[in-house]
Amino acid sequence: MPEQEMKKMNSDKVGTYQFVAEPFHVDFTGSLTMGVLGNHLLNCAGFHSTDRGFGIAELNENSYTWVLSRLAIEMDEMPHQYKKFTISTWVENVYRLFTDRNFEIINEDGKTIGYARSIWAMIDLSSRKPADLLSLHGGKIVDYVSDKECPIDKPGRIKLDNPERLSDYVAKYSDIDINGHVNSIKYIEHILDLFPIELFKEKRIKRFEMAYVAEVTTVTNSLSIGR
Amino acid sequence: MPEQEMKKMNSDKVGTYQFVAEPFHVDFTGSLTMGVLGNHLLNCAGFHSTDRGFGIAELNENSYTWVLSRLAIEMDEMPHQYKKFTISTWVENVYRLFTDRNFEIINEDGKTIGYARSIWAMIDLSSRKPADLLSLHGGKIVDYVSDKECPIDKPGRIKLDNPERLSDYVAKYSDIDINGHVNSIKYIEHILDLFPIELFKEKRIKRFEMAYVAEVTTVTNSLSIGR
Repeated sequence: MPEQEMKKMNSDKVGTYQFVAEPFHVDFTGSLTMGVLGNHLLNCAGFHSTDRGFGIAELNENSYTWVLSRLAIEMDEMPHQYKKFTISTWVENVYRLFTDRNFEIINEDGKTIGYARSIWAMIDLSSRKPADLLSLHGGKIVDYVSDKECPIDKPGRIKLDNPERLSDYVAKYSDIDINGHVNSIKYIEHILDLFPIELFKEKRIKRFEMAYVAEVTTVTNSLSIGR
Repeated sequence: MPEQEMKKMNSDKVGTYQFVAEPFHVDFTGSLTMGVLGNHLLNCAGFHSTDRGFGIAELNENSYTWVLSRLAIEMDEMPHQYKKFTISTWVENVYRLFTDRNFEIINEDGKTIGYARSIWAMIDLSSRKPADLLSLHGGKIVDYVSDKECPIDKPGRIKLDNPERLSDYVAKYSDIDINGHVNSIKYIEHILDLFPIELFKEKRIKRFEMAYVAEVTTVTNSLSIGR
């Protein structure tokens, strides 16, 4: 492939999106909250896959949807109120049942301030069974795999042998998304809200990791948080 | 004033901003939540005043800040997931201690789907006393007063004689903004979360009204919600 074409193809693999840290999206220290950052990351995943023909809207027509399985975010610093920042996203791997999507977060001076990794599955909405990513759209998703570096650890296996039950949370109106589940962002907020506010004065979150294992719906209703 | 100049001035009085209803910003019916709409309205107020020299950043340098006193939102319908919409905002009145700022919400077909009214004061951060809006910046804020129509009722006097205490809410990390207060948007979410989820299946919110009377901080910590 000619170098010019190669470059174009590579840049097409990575999507880059601009944001600003809005006043109601920062915490009391003036830093963007982890929940809002997570929301932006998932939106970028949506923009990137939609632009390439793998978005939820296209998939829904064929009764498929993306399901977030894991999310790991590692930040050296968080954007401060009113500061601009950009998020780049790309697909690292595509397996039969899962795909790895990574993110780089860059501050307004062009400095990388963090990375994130996510793992997604696709399910058939009618059967609730996982779909074969490699056969979807004639396997075209593989064309977007990029070798851009993401120098943070992969999401680990979160295993609790004898979890200590910390809190029971009853899902409320604001938590529930269009699929009838507690939305992926609200989990992040509810977990951080378990920590005493004072802690956030002294410490900041270096790495945040989520495993989306079971769905909390308006029927099951209650979320147990343990450690 | 020549007609051309008059038109330009008038259009300069109204600021218009584009949005899209993001997936994590809609409720289980697929409609934008009132909290997110409120967030967008307050951001528009910020953009509009900043562009005209009355933004928080400029004011903070002079130790002044805007304080939201009342908010009333009246919607015929809410934007649905992935739909674009625009919000226009303008200043209706400026008094010595308060200013009225209105909003029009327009769907992607150009149809007006709702209006909102807000009342703001300005305080001197050092003395915590209200500032005289008419003398600020040589009274220049008055030049931006627009006679654009806002056909919804003004925020009423919310008076509870013997309020029934419904709930006590303890402020958490996610609630607190950079000023150390529960942020204006979280109040909206917490109030709506008091209603049973089932109610939102049958009914939708026609009008939402808030009076921001006292500040809930990490010190006072607890918010009593009554009716």
